Amino acid sequence: MVGVKLLGSWYSLFTKRVEWALKIKGVKYEFIEEDLQNKSPLLIQSNPIHKKVPVLIHNGKHICESMVIVEYIDETFEGLSILPEDPYDRAIARFWAKFLDDKWPAMIKSIFFKGEEQEKAKEEVYEMLKVLDNEFKDKKFFVGDNFGFADIVANAVALWLGVFEEAFGVVLVTSEKFPNFCAWRDEYYTQNKKYLPSRDELISHYQTYIEAVAASK
Amino acid sequence: MVGVKLLGSWYSLFTKRVEWALKIKGVKYEFIEEDLQNKSPLLIQSNPIHKKVPVLIHNGKHICESMVIVEYIDETFEGLSILPEDPYDRAIARFWAKFLDDKWPAMIKSIFFKGEEQEKAKEEVYEMLKVLDNEFKDKKFFVGDNFGFADIVANAVALWLGVFEEAFGVVLVTSEKFPNFCAWRDEYYTQNKKYLPSRDELISHYQTYIEAVAASK
Repeated sequence: MVGVKLLGSWYSLFTKRVEWALKIKGVKYEFIEEDLQNKSPLLIQSNPIHKKVPVLIHNGKHICESMVIVEYIDETFEGLSILPEDPYDRAIARFWAKFLDDKWPAMIKSIFFKGEEQEKAKEEVYEMLKVLDNEFKDKKFFVGDNFGFADIVANAVALWLGVFEEAFGVVLVTSEKFPNFCAWRDEYYTQNKKYLPSRDELISHYQTYIEAVAASK
Repeated sequence: MVGVKLLGSWYSLFTKRVEWALKIKGVKYEFIEEDLQNKSPLLIQSNPIHKKVPVLIHNGKHICESMVIVEYIDETFEGLSILPEDPYDRAIARFWAKFLDDKWPAMIKSIFFKGEEQEKAKEEVYEMLKVLDNEFKDKKFFVGDNFGFADIVANAVALWLGVFEEAFGVVLVTSEKFPNFCAWRDEYYTQNKKYLPSRDELISHYQTYIEAVAASK
């Protein structure tokens, strides 16, 4: 019997954060791929409030919310540390993780919404990109010289945002406007391929989704 | 020289979370009341990304975001623990803290917005209240038998939501619909008065604000 199970979806950035943490720690786990259009009774029972992936099941206990799970994994299993040791550095890591997570709704709206709501969301995304571009002017990771918590959470901006732009035909990030961010993003994708799904497969997944929606109309 | 400074606002629930944590730990601090209509250079320099209170300044370092600050205080200073010791209990505390924080925008919109957007926000607030009412069916705190992190973050629903309802004339919470939540809320306010501003003073503050806005039109 495997003591650690992960209910997730291969194309979910939130799931991938948790898998990343498990891999950093070298934890063996059983991955249970959820059909998000037809959620399993196990998912609904394990995360009754949000009914969303990911859920980590460890020794029969359920832990929900990707950032909460990553901290749980860091505190529970031996191995390389994901959060820094120093409380101030930990605070900086949590600050950036929250910053990125709080911007996800705007990123989604900037892609999927139309009209005024989309324009408002785009403005918020541009503000975020400006902050990140400034941040990566002279550094590679969010905290000090080490990859960690905030960098894992940054998979949203480092991969998924660009995938959505390409699949749904919305342009937000250009290297003219955000050169430092783009340089950081390219390096991130190259360095962390083993923790990320393939960009092409993600784009293809969302394109199939677009076609299915169009065909159903 | 005082080593700990807090830039805040007496009527800010986010500031009050941080003060609460400092008081639990018995940390001496200098409180600097910010005029949020005319933010100080110190605030803007200390929190350049959000330009918001609270900011904790400790040994010259700036920490922003109320929940991040509370965790920093818990990890930095001796005294009673704010987060539980056990990693699973810590995950549950963080889950609820995030749940409550994520609902704050809906609470704000349910009070201040009009029309369809307000109705949509109200639905989200009712969903939240249903979850909390169910949660407090047979318990008093978010995690086990101890007051802690999530309970501090809950000041938003335990005091400010009701203050906004009264000051702005919107009814969301009724004891008929949410009896367990209301019982928990009454007990919370009675038990934690020393960590909260006066309900009457808060209401009076917001009523003055409403009158000032009306007079300026």
